[in-house]
This record gives sequence, structure tokens and C-alpha cells, in this order.
Amino acid sequence: MSDFSTSLAAFAAGSVETTLQTRVVTSLSVLDWIAVGRAGGDEPVSQTVRDLVLSEDGAAQAHLIGGGVAPLRGAALVNGTVSHALDYDDTHFAHIGHPSVAVLPAALALSEWDDRILVDFLEAALVGMETSIRVGLWLGRSHYQGGFHQTATAGAFGAAVAAGRILGFDTDQMCKVLGLTATRAAGLKAQFGTMGKPYNAGLAASAGVEAALLVAKGFEPNGRALEGQYGFGATHKGEAETQTALDGLGDKWLFESVSHKFHACCHGLHAALEAGRDLDIAEPEVAEIKVKTHPRWMSVCNQMSPTTGLGAKFSYRTVIAMQALGYDTALPGSYSEKICADTRLKSLRDRVVVESDDALSETQAHLTLLRRDGARLEATHDLLAPMTLSDREDRVRGKANKLIGSDEADAIWSMLRTGGRARDLAKVLAG
Amino acid sequence: MSDFSTSLAAFAAGSVETTLQTRVVTSLSVLDWIAVGRAGGDEPVSQTVRDLVLSEDGAAQAHLIGGGVAPLRGAALVNGTVSHALDYDDTHFAHIGHPSVAVLPAALALSEWDDRILVDFLEAALVGMETSIRVGLWLGRSHYQGGFHQTATAGAFGAAVAAGRILGFDTDQMCKVLGLTATRAAGLKAQFGTMGKPYNAGLAASAGVEAALLVAKGFEPNGRALEGQYGFGATHKGEAETQTALDGLGDKWLFESVSHKFHACCHGLHAALEAGRDLDIAEPEVAEIKVKTHPRWMSVCNQMSPTTGLGAKFSYRTVIAMQALGYDTALPGSYSEKICADTRLKSLRDRVVVESDDALSETQAHLTLLRRDGARLEATHDLLAPMTLSDREDRVRGKANKLIGSDEADAIWSMLRTGGRARDLAKVLAG
Repeated sequence: MSDFSTSLAAFAAGSVETTLQTRVVTSLSVLDWIAVGRAGGDEPVSQTVRDLVLSEDGAAQAHLIGGGVAPLRGAALVNGTVSHALDYDDTHFAHIGHPSVAVLPAALALSEWDDRILVDFLEAALVGMETSIRVGLWLGRSHYQGGFHQTATAGAFGAAVAAGRILGFDTDQMCKVLGLTATRAAGLKAQFGTMGKPYNAGLAASAGVEAALLVAKGFEPNGRALEGQYGFGATHKGEAETQTALDGLGDKWLFESVSHKFHACCHGLHAALEAGRDLDIAEPEVAEIKVKTHPRWMSVCNQMSPTTGLGAKFSYRTVIAMQALGYDTALPGSYSEKICADTRLKSLRDRVVVESDDALSETQAHLTLLRRDGARLEATHDLLAPMTLSDREDRVRGKANKLIGSDEADAIWSMLRTGGRARDLAKVLAG
Repeated sequence: MSDFSTSLAAFAAGSVETTLQTRVVTSLSVLDWIAVGRAGGDEPVSQTVRDLVLSEDGAAQAHLIGGGVAPLRGAALVNGTVSHALDYDDTHFAHIGHPSVAVLPAALALSEWDDRILVDFLEAALVGMETSIRVGLWLGRSHYQGGFHQTATAGAFGAAVAAGRILGFDTDQMCKVLGLTATRAAGLKAQFGTMGKPYNAGLAASAGVEAALLVAKGFEPNGRALEGQYGFGATHKGEAETQTALDGLGDKWLFESVSHKFHACCHGLHAALEAGRDLDIAEPEVAEIKVKTHPRWMSVCNQMSPTTGLGAKFSYRTVIAMQALGYDTALPGSYSEKICADTRLKSLRDRVVVESDDALSETQAHLTLLRRDGARLEATHDLLAPMTLSDREDRVRGKANKLIGSDEADAIWSMLRTGGRARDLAKVLAG
């Protein structure tokens, strides 16, 4: 077997066979990425990073989410940061990373600049996201548990490969871009809970773009800097299980199992909200709602009586009460100081009981609804449970409709599914 | 004792007491940095990175070594890379890093842009370089031996602080810029021997500038991300010996013992060349020259009969023969394919014998010259041996004279010692 870099590079440079599933899921991730990016365009971190890049007054090479144009590296930095600002983008659980926010800004900036068709953009995006997942698997849990933010680290390699694909790289150039990325991929979980988290995604996108542009200009780095005694894996607490990471590469698309967020709150709350959705709870009839969840979430998102919008996003009791009262948990604006002070909500919240249950996995939750009429209803949801392609399409498009309006969401979806030019899609970022 | 970040930040934001020694050595490092940068301006890596930045066509905020102007982040990327292209810049042995190439590009770009006086620039440079050395000591040998390029990693923190000082940061903002830098400082030794090594220095300079500009715009990161379970130290094989790293901070300037290179070749050869200088060898009288060196260098720079200029830079036998024949080992152009093929050089090279001696330290070398007349002369040199300030000035200015001509070197020195505006110094970068 050839080394990890060469195998990845050959995959990244080679022709790929897509399926209906990969094509639809890639398009859904792009739609989702644009929608959450646009929704986060005015967040303080988004404004700060966009201000910096716009202050450089560079060439109009690529559009920025939220308005403006910038050189490729700057556009990637802004769009990666902005699209992760709400933490509402897609997640891949195999390596615990957010593939779209690192890879799509790189792929789209290059595709816009090089005036490529959307099919090329989507293929580069797919290959880049698959690469980031494979690198993430190769780095393994020890890397993530050890303090590294996989979205940023593994993501940078995916961004580099996606950019390289648009630049027409062969296997040798793909090795070089992976090797050069190895010397600058970075991002610490120590930034979680601060503006540094979304910025990490922007760093990854920008690092990938920079590495690809340099290799295209003839930069000669060490092209085998992922593996080896002093490679990225060994220096960054990687497990380097090459066989597992490469299993089925080119035939099996791990990207297909990417998970989209349908609620604008902590991922730890999503299984419970999905179970609640199945029970179709209506507030007046609630005597008690019992939420059972995996023990690890108890210290993450079980604030009892939060008073701020941010607090609400980390509170089982609050989000379940919001759902039962008919508030839309998909809208970031639903989580507010006002709702936390609402008397109906506070009264219902006191009827929600949260318990840990180590028989559940991290992606599962169990809800029991006791109705005033004595009925007892139960539902369990696992975020890893397969969704049909049409269900997934309905949910992602529904989310996009809410975030940017159905006219625009429909137009983007139509562009992605029927083709066109990348620069027309890029213009949509401005909003 | 307060934590590491706070102590560093307070030092970086506070008033500092400089001495004649710190002021002269800082100015010498700036002169040396400009001279080696200008000499490396046309290297392939310099052209590649400068091309990328100039292709972005951004605002004329700061001058580039070798010509052109660019926004601050881009200028730092280019100037860091270019000034490390020849590997001829200063070195600090306490943490094994090159302080000037990471810190000076950041300090000068900000000082030019903000139209500061040279005294402000030099103070920010000194504080930044001291910070990079302190962070390097804190990360320790385990970090470097583990695969990280301290010039890049520790250097990024120094660049960030230098930029922050020009931006007028208080202690709290300095903590923030250190914390933000912690999520993007990167650079692997796996790039040694490739264009990736100088690029690492550019990355550090640029990362520091970006972090400082973002904090100035209100970015809120985790401001304690160096230390702790998931901080930069713990995630990057750091030793985190806080007491050692902070010893005497503010009173004792570790930067003062920075070492300048006086020969344009591998640092492992320098002690032998300095010993050879003391012996004042003249070729015709040489029967044999015996070089004794620390064992670690035998696998680094003991090529027996190199045929290329690059090979010559890693060959005791070749450089000692060059010196005895009167070639100037301070000039990068002296190391060439042609000289390797010279019959006089080849004949003399065969009379040079290299032996390892573990009684010597890594910075020491011992030379024995056996003359044809039967005389035996010996000399030992230690690169750590103190130099008088005037000797140091003579040597650094002499080197600069050779690299950029004495008119310009004298003009730069005069500017640095008598004052003026940073933007006038920055214009000299263009060459």
C-alpha cells in the first residue's frame, strides 16, 4: 500500500464516480451552508473578520457572505468564519467535524474566480469534504480529545484539496498541497465558546486556498508531511490508522452520512427535539415531560433556567418548552432574553425533567410525555438513524426557506440541481 | 504568581527599560535582517510568495522586501519568508529560534502603516523578540525535538505582541492577542530543507499581524489559551516551565545574547570557521587541517565532496578549504558548483580531516593546523563566547556592507541609531 498522502492525493486528483445520493447531499450541504452563513452574516465575529479583509481593499476575486468582494484568501477567511458563526452548519460524526465551513469557502472562491461551472464546484466540494473526513478519521479521537478542533485541522486539508482540484492539480501537486497544509493547519478547542471557534473554520479555508495557490505558482514543500516521525499526525496527537482512514476511498463516500442541524441550538439538544417533534406536544395538555439523554450532555447543555438567548441554546428544559409552545427552534432569533422571561414558558419549563441515562448513546434521546388526561406517550430518536433522501431534502430546504426566504432558497436549489456558473451562485452570498 | 499569559501580557504592554546593549543589539538585528532579506529577495520561494501577495492587488500599507507594497498581513507574510530564505538571519540558542524573521516583519509593517518613529518600532521589535524567546523557552526542548519549528510557533507570539504594542494594547488586549495566536501558531520541522522552512517564518509574522488587527477591531477570543489542559503548550508538546521562562522578565533581556551569522552556510560550520579565522590559514602552507566538532553535526553538515553550492553549505571540508583559499564565506554567492569543481579547492579539501568529539558542545569547534614547516597551531571557538559590543557591531555592519553595499548599510545604520520615521526605513526594503 502506498503512503497516506499519496493515496489521498491520487483520490483527490483522480476522476470520481458520484451517485444520486452524493450529488443531492452535496447540494443540500451547499444550500445549508449558504443559508446558515447568510443568517450569521451580522454576528460580531462576522463583522470583525469581514472588516479586516475589506480594509485590505484587494482585488475583487470572490464574493463575501454578507456583502463585498475580496481576494481568494480573504474571501475564504471571511466565508469560513461567517458560516460557522452560528454553529448551525453540518456535522460529520465519524470524525466530529464540520465539513462544509472549511471546504466550501475554498471551493467556491476558486470556482468563482476561475469562472467554472457548478458541476466542477460541486465535485471539488465533494472531494474536499470527503478528504477532510478521511484526514479527520486518520487523526482520530486522540487528536480531538487532545485539544485540536478537527473542523479546522482536518478541514484545512479538505479545503486545500478542493482548491487544488479547481486548479487542475495532478497527484504530485496534490501531495505538495497536502504537505504544505501540514505546516500550517491549526485550531484549538480552547477557543470553544468564543469568537475563536468560527474563526478556526475561516483559518482552515484560507490556509487551504493559500497552500493551493502557492503550489500552483511552483512552491516546493515537503510533500509527505502528514505521515512520518515529524509529520502532522505525529506532532498533533494523531492515531494515524491509515487502513481505517482509507477504507473504501473512492467507492464509499463517508460524506453521505453528514448530518444537518435542524434546530439553532447546541447539538446535544437535537435528538430530544426530534423526539419531541415525533410526539407533537401541545402545551395545554402537558402534565410532565421527561427527557433522558446521554450523561455527557448533562454538563454541556442542561442549563436549568437560563435568562439569555445564548443560555436558552444550552438548555433542555427551555428548548422542549419552546417546542411545545409552538416556537420555531429552527430560527436563531427564537432564542432570546424575552422568551426566557415569558411566564407561559417558565411555567411549562418547570414541568420538564431531565435525567441522564447511560444506556443511551451520545446521539440518542428518549422523551416521555405525561398528559393531563393520564395518557403516557414515549419517543426515542437517534441522530444517526438514516433519513430518506427526500426527507432530508424536505428538512434542509425547509430550514433554508426559514433562514433566507423560500424564493431565494428555491432559486439556489434550482441552480444547484440544474447547473449554471459558480459565479452566479457566489453572488447569492452577498444577500 | 499570575499565569503565564498575564505575566507575558503585562510585560508586553508595560513600559520597558532598555540599555545601550539592548538598543545596539536590536538595531544590529534590524540591519542584519534587512541585509539578509535583500540578499534573499530573488530566491524562488521569495518570488513565489511575493507573487501571490502582489496578485491580490491590495492597499499599499507596507513595503515588501524586493519591491512592491501590500496590506499588512501580506507584507508580513512576504517579508518573513524572504528574510529567512537564505537561512542567514539571527539565531537565539536558548530556545533555538530565529527571532528577527518572525517579529521584525510584523513590527515594521505596523510601524510604517501607523507612521511611527523608529524608536517606537525598535522598542516593539525588542519586546516582541524577547517575548518569542520567552515563549520558546516555555515550550522547551520537547516542543522542538517533537517536531515543531520554534521560529514559527514561538515567533508568532512575538510577532503578535510586537504588532499589538504598535497598536497600543493594554495588558488585557495583549492576553487576547496571545490567546488568539495560540489557535493558529503553526510550523513543522518536517519542512526543513524545502521552501516550507522560510515560509514558516512568514506564517508566524502574518499570523501575529492578523491576530493583533482582529483584537484591535474587538475580536473576543479565549485570552488564556497558551496554558492549561488544552492550551497551546499542552497540545504542542510544550514543557510549560513557567518559572524558568519568566525568570527576570523585564530586567534581564535574553534577546541580548542573540547570535548573528557571519558565514552564509549551515550554523553547524560556524564555530569551525571562526576558529579558522583566528588561525589565519594561508593555503600554501597547509599540510593538514583537523576539525573537531560535536557529534550531532556529523550527520548534518559533513558532506565530504559536495558538487553543488547547496552541498558546499553543508560541508566542513569545503568551507574550511574555501576560507584558506581566501574565498569570502560571508557571501551566499561564494558557494557554487564552480567552486566545488575548482582543482585547488579539491586538493586542499583532501587535506582537511573532520572528527567528532563529544567533549565539545554543539556551539564549539576545535581546529588543528599542521603546517608544511612542521609547526602545529590550534584554536577553539565557542559561538556562545561573549563578543564586545563594538566587535559585534563591526562584524554585523561588515556583513551588511558585503550584502547590500556599504553606502546603503551605513545609511540604514545611521537611521537606526539617530532616529527618524519607520516609513523611511521601510522604503529601504525595496532595494
